[in-house]
Amino acid sequence: MTRTLITHADIVTLDSAGTILRNAEVAIDGARIVAVGQAPAGFQADETLDARNHVLMPGFVNAHTHSPMTFERGWAEDLPLDRWFNERVWVVESQLSDEDVYWGAMLAAAEMIRGGTVAFADHYFYMDRVAQAAEQAGLRALLAWCVFGEEHNIGVDLPGTVDFVQRWQGAADGRIRTLLGPHSPYMCEPRFLARTAAVAARLGVGIHIHLAESQQQVDNSLARYDRSPVELLEANGIFDVPTIAAHCICLSEIDQAILARRGVHVVQCPNCHMKLGMGVTPVPALLAQGVNVALGTDGPASSNDLNMLKEARLAALIQKLHHADPELMAGDLPLRMATQNGARALGWPDSGAIVPGNLADLILLDCDQPHWRPRHDLVANLLHSAQAGDVSHVMVAGRWLMKERRLLTLDQERILWEAERRALKLVGQDLAIVRTYAG
Amino acid sequence: MTRTLITHADIVTLDSAGTILRNAEVAIDGARIVAVGQAPAGFQADETLDARNHVLMPGFVNAHTHSPMTFERGWAEDLPLDRWFNERVWVVESQLSDEDVYWGAMLAAAEMIRGGTVAFADHYFYMDRVAQAAEQAGLRALLAWCVFGEEHNIGVDLPGTVDFVQRWQGAADGRIRTLLGPHSPYMCEPRFLARTAAVAARLGVGIHIHLAESQQQVDNSLARYDRSPVELLEANGIFDVPTIAAHCICLSEIDQAILARRGVHVVQCPNCHMKLGMGVTPVPALLAQGVNVALGTDGPASSNDLNMLKEARLAALIQKLHHADPELMAGDLPLRMATQNGARALGWPDSGAIVPGNLADLILLDCDQPHWRPRHDLVANLLHSAQAGDVSHVMVAGRWLMKERRLLTLDQERILWEAERRALKLVGQDLAIVRTYAG
Repeated sequence: MTRTLITHADIVTLDSAGTILRNAEVAIDGARIVAVGQAPAGFQADETLDARNHVLMPGFVNAHTHSPMTFERGWAEDLPLDRWFNERVWVVESQLSDEDVYWGAMLAAAEMIRGGTVAFADHYFYMDRVAQAAEQAGLRALLAWCVFGEEHNIGVDLPGTVDFVQRWQGAADGRIRTLLGPHSPYMCEPRFLARTAAVAARLGVGIHIHLAESQQQVDNSLARYDRSPVELLEANGIFDVPTIAAHCICLSEIDQAILARRGVHVVQCPNCHMKLGMGVTPVPALLAQGVNVALGTDGPASSNDLNMLKEARLAALIQKLHHADPELMAGDLPLRMATQNGARALGWPDSGAIVPGNLADLILLDCDQPHWRPRHDLVANLLHSAQAGDVSHVMVAGRWLMKERRLLTLDQERILWEAERRALKLVGQDLAIVRTYAG
Repeated sequence: MTRTLITHADIVTLDSAGTILRNAEVAIDGARIVAVGQAPAGFQADETLDARNHVLMPGFVNAHTHSPMTFERGWAEDLPLDRWFNERVWVVESQLSDEDVYWGAMLAAAEMIRGGTVAFADHYFYMDRVAQAAEQAGLRALLAWCVFGEEHNIGVDLPGTVDFVQRWQGAADGRIRTLLGPHSPYMCEPRFLARTAAVAARLGVGIHIHLAESQQQVDNSLARYDRSPVELLEANGIFDVPTIAAHCICLSEIDQAILARRGVHVVQCPNCHMKLGMGVTPVPALLAQGVNVALGTDGPASSNDLNMLKEARLAALIQKLHHADPELMAGDLPLRMATQNGARALGWPDSGAIVPGNLADLILLDCDQPHWRPRHDLVANLLHSAQAGDVSHVMVAGRWLMKERRLLTLDQERILWEAERRALKLVGQDLAIVRTYAG
């Protein structure tokens, strides 16, 4: 059990009072924070880190992504959703090997650590390889193998995803957890949704699903089932287990009440919602009803990166614009959505705030740069000025994954090479062109 | 005259054809680009820079800002415009000394260079000190001393701004240019606008002004003058000289036609428009009518930073969302708005594209990082994945202002100290608190 002492940090704790400490200490014993402010008398640190000119805060939680889609970053630009999928994304995904998924996830892990993400909820295929990447990277992960129904799945059908869930549940010292991943109420038949919900209940795991992404989806659902997508999921037992519902853009008041009553975790992906012109999740209304709203990047084929600072900023900006109200999403709320709300959705309520007893999932940002000065308001600086590249140190469960912007668990040079080589091959780009990049 | 050769660069030229070159050269002689692709036979470089693993593109042009407002970064958060101004911004601005303005502008210059900005249009007070900062930093600048009318001005009245215009016109080897800066049609009386327009015409300079920021401004203008703000400016001769009009959110079709017919340069500030809940400039409609639309950050009291990559990204996202159309603002258009459209607005049409004969105002970005891979589409990577901190080199008029992320013209350590010390003092924060930052 390593004991770490961080000194001289300016700390945005995101505790219940919104405490900000200046020139303060954090003491870590094993995987947990044991003191904030000043180390306990007699605390013997194995390592002391001087965090002068750095801001310390909880690490980010990306609550909805398809991380191996780093392969498709910049490969499907400026397209409507149907062409985005059929002409671009599907062309790549139909050829993916499990080895491709592994390197896509490794590239994602490197990017996530560099941007201060400590945990992610992934929803994709060949998830054993994503689990392997998360294990090696040292990240927390809540993993779902996406299935569409009784057939036409990628890699495995529902029973195979059950095997996956059991194989990886609690792996990597508990950093990896698993759940079921039916794609959505518009891709999955009601009977399959009900079967999936029953399997999840039997296994004692949750469900991660896409929900209410467009008015067309809602209209189709009403026409076909006389139920909104939210009502359809409730009627088929999905919400009987803990559920992460991504997007939730088109919600009636009845839908919102259902999500609140059933404790569904809603994940907004502001960058993706803007870039694909999808609309605005009613976050202020959901929060007012007590819904836990977290943030995600979605896959890099739509949002292009895995940058949670950007998502937090956009979560503030999109609502202020949409409601023409600059007072909305005030203060540290977007940072809480990007950290502790995500941690709660992923099942780690003891992460996402710098308080004694919590998991030591934390990051430092280098504020010795012009865009960080003056420091009138560290929360505003984090939310509206900081860049992902300002993150200098990342710790998960008391273990450093990055120090002084150097990755400690991953071989970045090899990852960049392997991932890019495979990504370009998948889309049929000439490898000779890649080589000109490397000279 | 220094001759520089940049080799092995991936170049996003933003020329008229949208040419992208890989593993290519740029030759620079004095202030200008002399060759793109391959250096001319016999080109003798004083310096050769190997740009392997970097993307080269035109530098950014911030076409509307109040750069010394770095002092108020994070000092006026989540407030409606009236409280934002009266309770926060004005409290600081009413106490500003010219020395404060100088250090605020120096902090801004350091941030702008680090983020790849090569030129800016500034609209503020004590502008001799901003000119001095731009001269020292090596940036291009188009500077206006803001005046409100015949009285209640800061530092000088209109005749004083004429002196300023003449004092600095063409200074710093032509890098500094000046124009007049009446605040807006809602702060300036029509008679004063007409007088300002006449003075500008006599001097042969342009005008930089705020325009049509809210429906309330439009309604008040119609009630008081029976003219929209755009119509009021036209009627008072403002558009008889080259005009930069910032914001232009609330425009009738008649207004749009006037802006097009009169060749007004419109500057959208997407981050500010979102954060203050102001609305959406009708950019697609303006572009379709041939209006030159550029981008600006506005002052850091509203947008919190001077990050033009962020503005370019938001310029794409805000329109895709607002019109629910992912095909809008496609390809490199937002990058063109952030570079050559701004250069044209500022009066340097020979900047903003990497073509022979143009000014050597260019930047390199370090793409040896996870969020840059794979490189399916360098434009998409620049627009939707790159961070301001990825900018590694900045050249203005053939002179390096930054290399390998090291500022060559400015003393960053001193700037951070002086600017923060003064900013905290202005808002009455205890300097002892600052000292804890420095240990």
